[in-house]
Amino acid sequence: MAFSHYPEPLARLIQEFTRLPGVGPKTAQRLAFFVLRMEERDVMALASALADAKRKIGRCSVCFNLADAEPCHICRDARRDRGVICVVEEANDLVAMEKTRTYNGLYHVLEGALSPLEGVGPEALRLAGLLKRVKEGGVREVILATNPTVEGEATAMYIARLLRPLNVKTTRIARGVPVGGDLEYADEVTLARALEGRREM
Amino acid sequence: MAFSHYPEPLARLIQEFTRLPGVGPKTAQRLAFFVLRMEERDVMALASALADAKRKIGRCSVCFNLADAEPCHICRDARRDRGVICVVEEANDLVAMEKTRTYNGLYHVLEGALSPLEGVGPEALRLAGLLKRVKEGGVREVILATNPTVEGEATAMYIARLLRPLNVKTTRIARGVPVGGDLEYADEVTLARALEGRREM
Repeated sequence: MAFSHYPEPLARLIQEFTRLPGVGPKTAQRLAFFVLRMEERDVMALASALADAKRKIGRCSVCFNLADAEPCHICRDARRDRGVICVVEEANDLVAMEKTRTYNGLYHVLEGALSPLEGVGPEALRLAGLLKRVKEGGVREVILATNPTVEGEATAMYIARLLRPLNVKTTRIARGVPVGGDLEYADEVTLARALEGRREM
Repeated sequence: MAFSHYPEPLARLIQEFTRLPGVGPKTAQRLAFFVLRMEERDVMALASALADAKRKIGRCSVCFNLADAEPCHICRDARRDRGVICVVEEANDLVAMEKTRTYNGLYHVLEGALSPLEGVGPEALRLAGLLKRVKEGGVREVILATNPTVEGEATAMYIARLLRPLNVKTTRIARGVPVGGDLEYADEVTLARALEGRREM
């Protein structure tokens, strides 16, 4: 046992902490000692939050967003525009979109992106569900908001091709220079995309 | 609520993670998403390790080491030399000493060091217990292994003065250049100490 100088419950806590990403033995030890100094009430709150999150959170069967209800709060929300579906790779991308406070449609979470190198093919993504939603009708536009990476672009292109026979407007979010950035520091590919995507004003 | 775009159990987990040291909202979010991908069994193991460590770990009433038994496994160990007490600031310093595998005596954890600037006076340290142990007799030597910092040095000096009337040998661990280090990178104070503490060979 690696932490045998500690009493067993402490050694076990250190060990368990090392399961978390970016937490090595040193950090785990620091976290564990911190936990011993925390209020018991706060430690219990963290422990039960862990158990609750794991037990109660699943995927929405419609959009595959993380959810503690079925369907999720976004799919259920009557004030949202059901004619637009924004396709994202992961649930945290959905949260990033929500934070813009400018989007009022629905979502579809792919739970990944195409990556032949890592063996992620179309069957690993939530594509059947997306096609089903579009085929059911009522969808005017599908916004492809996969990441501006090689995998994200490939995924967007793949989905655009899938959707073509369904006659639904399919758009891709703009790639360009980030707001607040400096042209000097923008990479050439981004700058080229920004030029290509220029609009009259 | 800061994480209102997430289902409640997830938002709560993120919130609880931010209580840990060095964990800001971004890291908390990353950790929480990781937890959702972990095996349920592993999450439950972490949750119960947290609760157990907090509930079962206390301080040894003799040496104030962290312990899940009374007295701690070191104070209880009949193979250890009961004539030597090594005084350290915190329980993790004790672990550092144990890892050397060269010390076989007992310990005394002060739970801090004198720090007038932070309002830590002698009454905040576990000094009464140390004096009691020495007065009870059978102690040949007290090794002062407080940290080589201003606070640690002051604490060592303070304890040495307290112990003087008790006629027990009191020693201070050597300060010098760290093994494997390079003189070029040693600071002047350390180097001066190394010179001062030189020994014939």
